[in-house]
Amino acid sequence: MLVGVAVVGCGYWGPNLIRNFYESNEVDLRWVCDLQSERLNSIRKRFPTVAQTTRLEEVLADPKVDAVCVATPSNTHFELAKLILESGRHVLVEKPLCDSSDKVEQLIEIAERRGRVLMVDHTFLYNPAVRCVRGIIDSGRLGNLLYFDSTRVNLGLFQRDVNVLWDLAVHDLAMMDYLIPDRRPFAVSATGVAHVTGQPENMAYLTCFYDDNLVAHIHANWLAPVKLRRTLIGGEKQMIVYDDLEPSERVKVYDKGITVTDESEIKELLISYRSGDCWSPKIPAGEALQNEVRHFVDCIRSGASPLSDGHAGLRVVKLIEAGTKSMQLRGEPVELK
Amino acid sequence: MLVGVAVVGCGYWGPNLIRNFYESNEVDLRWVCDLQSERLNSIRKRFPTVAQTTRLEEVLADPKVDAVCVATPSNTHFELAKLILESGRHVLVEKPLCDSSDKVEQLIEIAERRGRVLMVDHTFLYNPAVRCVRGIIDSGRLGNLLYFDSTRVNLGLFQRDVNVLWDLAVHDLAMMDYLIPDRRPFAVSATGVAHVTGQPENMAYLTCFYDDNLVAHIHANWLAPVKLRRTLIGGEKQMIVYDDLEPSERVKVYDKGITVTDESEIKELLISYRSGDCWSPKIPAGEALQNEVRHFVDCIRSGASPLSDGHAGLRVVKLIEAGTKSMQLRGEPVELK
Amino acid sequence: MLVGVAVVGCGYWGPNLIRNFYESNEVDLRWVCDLQSERLNSIRKRFPTVAQTTRLEEVLADPKVDAVCVATPSNTHFELAKLILESGRHVLVEKPLCDSSDKVEQLIEIAERRGRVLMVDHTFLYNPAVRCVRGIIDSGRLGNLLYFDSTRVNLGLFQRDVNVLWDLAVHDLAMMDYLIPDRRPFAVSATGVAHVTGQPENMAYLTCFYDDNLVAHIHANWLAPVKLRRTLIGGEKQMIVYDDLEPSERVKVYDKGITVTDESEIKELLISYRSGDCWSPKIPAGEALQNEVRHFVDCIRSGASPLSDGHAGLRVVKLIEAGTKSMQLRGEPVELK
Amino acid sequence: MLVGVAVVGCGYWGPNLIRNFYESNEVDLRWVCDLQSERLNSIRKRFPTVAQTTRLEEVLADPKVDAVCVATPSNTHFELAKLILESGRHVLVEKPLCDSSDKVEQLIEIAERRGRVLMVDHTFLYNPAVRCVRGIIDSGRLGNLLYFDSTRVNLGLFQRDVNVLWDLAVHDLAMMDYLIPDRRPFAVSATGVAHVTGQPENMAYLTCFYDDNLVAHIHANWLAPVKLRRTLIGGEKQMIVYDDLEPSERVKVYDKGITVTDESEIKELLISYRSGDCWSPKIPAGEALQNEVRHFVDCIRSGASPLSDGHAGLRVVKLIEAGTKSMQLRGEPVELK
Repeated sequence: MLVGVAVVGCGYWGPNLIRNFYESNEVDLRWVCDLQSERLNSIRKRFPTVAQTTRLEEVLADPKVDAVCVATPSNTHFELAKLILESGRHVLVEKPLCDSSDKVEQLIEIAERRGRVLMVDHTFLYNPAVRCVRGIIDSGRLGNLLYFDSTRVNLGLFQRDVNVLWDLAVHDLAMMDYLIPDRRPFAVSATGVAHVTGQPENMAYLTCFYDDNLVAHIHANWLAPVKLRRTLIGGEKQMIVYDDLEPSERVKVYDKGITVTDESEIKELLISYRSGDCWSPKIPAGEALQNEVRHFVDCIRSGASPLSDGHAGLRVVKLIEAGTKSMQLRGEPVELK
Repeated sequence: MLVGVAVVGCGYWGPNLIRNFYESNEVDLRWVCDLQSERLNSIRKRFPTVAQTTRLEEVLADPKVDAVCVATPSNTHFELAKLILESGRHVLVEKPLCDSSDKVEQLIEIAERRGRVLMVDHTFLYNPAVRCVRGIIDSGRLGNLLYFDSTRVNLGLFQRDVNVLWDLAVHDLAMMDYLIPDRRPFAVSATGVAHVTGQPENMAYLTCFYDDNLVAHIHANWLAPVKLRRTLIGGEKQMIVYDDLEPSERVKVYDKGITVTDESEIKELLISYRSGDCWSPKIPAGEALQNEVRHFVDCIRSGASPLSDGHAGLRVVKLIEAGTKSMQLRGEPVELK
Repeated sequence: MLVGVAVVGCGYWGPNLIRNFYESNEVDLRWVCDLQSERLNSIRKRFPTVAQTTRLEEVLADPKVDAVCVATPSNTHFELAKLILESGRHVLVEKPLCDSSDKVEQLIEIAERRGRVLMVDHTFLYNPAVRCVRGIIDSGRLGNLLYFDSTRVNLGLFQRDVNVLWDLAVHDLAMMDYLIPDRRPFAVSATGVAHVTGQPENMAYLTCFYDDNLVAHIHANWLAPVKLRRTLIGGEKQMIVYDDLEPSERVKVYDKGITVTDESEIKELLISYRSGDCWSPKIPAGEALQNEVRHFVDCIRSGASPLSDGHAGLRVVKLIEAGTKSMQLRGEPVELK
Repeated sequence: MLVGVAVVGCGYWGPNLIRNFYESNEVDLRWVCDLQSERLNSIRKRFPTVAQTTRLEEVLADPKVDAVCVATPSNTHFELAKLILESGRHVLVEKPLCDSSDKVEQLIEIAERRGRVLMVDHTFLYNPAVRCVRGIIDSGRLGNLLYFDSTRVNLGLFQRDVNVLWDLAVHDLAMMDYLIPDRRPFAVSATGVAHVTGQPENMAYLTCFYDDNLVAHIHANWLAPVKLRRTLIGGEKQMIVYDDLEPSERVKVYDKGITVTDESEIKELLISYRSGDCWSPKIPAGEALQNEVRHFVDCIRSGASPLSDGHAGLRVVKLIEAGTKSMQLRGEPVELK
């Protein structure tokens, strides 16, 4: 049986979700919905078999719709997802899950009560390179984790109603949450600045403190000259560099995280460019969203909890809230409950 | 007339200074001094005409010594520089100038009283690429400065008596101080961690707050899988990427720092890798230390104050002190007086 | 009025053409045709409004079909294109236009006699980066052209019925023909080798000789460890590097092609990584095939001759024939008539 | 006992040899000799303990001189090396060994008759990265060798009395000769062009034909916008990319040299950037010339034949002669005897 799906929201990201649901062999994509009919028009030719509407009620009135995907601005996620869950449908919500942790908690409660899947579009968890990194971490070859350091900078500053943590850092926080399983930060310190008066912060630096001297740091910036997507993961024995824009070697594993005291070794390190042998696994082809759609369908069918469930969404939103508060206090640390 | 010079300290960095003084046509390099005679032995063949000693008094007893260069561990800088200045010699001190701002202030006072040159080895101020960046900033083409973001990560963790701010970030702070002339940060927030128990912090993130929403951020790490040296400088109109390890295009200038609101422009930016035309000036060849030695000699002769004088050294040491304090408080901001 | 189009061939490349015709606002894509019905099935969902058939006659019987695009194996191009032209339709043929120059000449004759557009899919002529390079050449800023050097190496060796010149070098020859307008090579020398017994050559090196000491060289290889797409264009005053895989700086223009005799300049060059300032224009976004489809439609409507017309296709096929012959003679030069 | 050494020639390359002999603990560098006394002056300060002369006779009159290194223009190599060997000294000659194979054969004969070491400065044979590549080849993991492809392009065209094969390609030919041991090419085809009238060719492409479909290709160019130093080595099972300018990953080994026939694999290859896992060994630090000087000294002491002996020099010179002849015939193949 195909899973009947509707997608709400045809802005920048929606069409990517639409295309992946459309091309899935396990999905019957029945509806796309957007308040702006021009947006619907712009995709009609590409998806001619999918019904279009500007009214969500019409979607929810269709008994063949089993699940709805929400790709609208984040301040509308809560109301829409609530309506969808209450109507008995499963829901996949674009990141961030909601614009406050209170709302996320309510959605979790509703989803559990109604026995429906609540999943957040933490896309990178379904990216083959990130999967590969997780496999390397799980193998234990890195040794104790020392740090996670992620940079995500983009090219242009544009009008947004939320700060850059909600929009860019959310990806890195979701990755961090996935790649450091079973451990949670206890505090956050963040700094950031808004370069347009009256606008939210467009660049931010955020440190997450974990026990045992593990730290994670995220650098997010909407106003950079070049696009960067690079994550360093330091372990006691090996280290990873994951550069999502590197076409041929997205993931590299370096042989040792060294501790040296001998003077000649220090001299050699100071003139070297890296510390040991390097290995770069071939990353399987495959689009993250395709994996994500498949996972959503699997969870709907099996009743299993998705990798990026409401709780994952909640942890990330709480980190953003703490980071936002710390930014306003110029880096003063904020505890996480 | 040649300037008579002695160099104290033949560890990792000393021989670079020795070589540059040795090869200068304006210098008579008379002495090298180190407490460890094996170190002296190791360079005897390369500099056979230079006298060697393990006793500083012997150096200071030579009336032909006009200036002394100090390349010893930083906790010895104050005592040595004080002795040298009090003996009436000019002094060039490896970075950081001292291990506390109090001591720097005393050295400044002595140097002024004795009318001698006090210069700190902020090497990057004499690097042709950094000079080129300063020229671009001075031309005004960047428009208002928005941010300075510098990453300096190294390959190995080794025994140090000071944290990574004193050892690595000092370079970026010196660059920042030089590249953002006439403006001073009013507060600092820093986070960092020590991965070896009982050792000082080996990785750190530091934000400097300036008026008018200018921020500077420095990321320093001794324990990375790869070596990185990259500085982004964001302006309202243009932006710079300076990558000191990029062999062919160390400095790149990007055409615009964009503000967009139009949806199609946003889509284009989201799939682009940069924002405008790019121009990469040819950086003249030439070693930073050679320029630095020449500048030291010029200041000795002319009586002019060096670019990296005691006051520059003091500003940098104060930033490191504030950063160190903030790190201990997990990012709590520390005001600069 | 929309132009009625059919696409014949749904292998590797066909679906790209289908998608671009499908998404064009000036085209009514009426048919896709392939002998293998599984291939048709595989794209039915993506293009549900397009009729499918395994029989070309059905396509040609549709009076609303104005033009046909042929994306089948190259040994079938001639028969198909001939049939299509004779039926009074315009035709766009995947590269190489035919597998022999005799056949191309016949197609040119038929197209001219019937007054129909004959266009070959020399995709790179419609690539925004190549367009940008042509603009720079046309501006005259390079000075006299000295050489064209293009490398196109791919990852895997696979069964082909033609040598690598027909399959890979054809792109570079088409670019060369476009970027060096008004000049034609007079001879070709090529070397190459087949690593699988009984198969055609899978790697080749080809030199084209022009008057006035201009040379063009193409390196094509199906069996490389990494993918490379790089073209150097040397001029007396400036030089271009075009790297199609470089995400952020696909085209770079270097300031001077130097002639030096002074010894100190030589030393500087020997340690430098490039010769002058570098400028990298922002390449407009946009898919080559979309530009190509638009150009095909424009030529159909206006009756103009396309940029990649039969004559361009003929010149390229003649170069490949000469190169193939030279390869068999281990590099012996072959004159072009 | 130290080996007494003299170096003749203080132009561009000579000082590098002088420094390495000077710093060797097994060498007593006694003389540097150059016809131009200004050149001698320019290095006096760096090597103050070494005697200087403009007359070779003075060097040869010193009974403590055991060996002489010749770093003069190549058209003087024969006369100088002959004189040195006849005087009973060992000789290390800068590449190319002589400017004709006849002369090399005479030197070989003299060296054998006099029982002296004749070594040519094929520097790359002593480069740690090339050594590492040779080790990988010797391990057999590449499988049958399919091709060797080397690019060496430089930044400026300058007055030379010999073509670019003698000056640049000589390095690649020496590497090829070393990395493909026990196999010799049977013919050469080359093309090239001179962009300055009356001057020798400043760019060249050269193919060496071996039995069993192995080919080697070398691209050498004095007039490029960027410096490139890249060698691809293709094997049936694995492949190597060696890029001498890549700071952190000079040697990379790719997992498979694939043969595929399946359509889905072809599609994946066509969109991939490489073919399998990649491994990049850490290259030990160490200067090639230092290894070379040590090897020269070892051969002098042990009487062993150097890796780059007269016969290696002869093979390379014969390849250059054949390539030069072929270039004049626009690629016509020239047999090697």
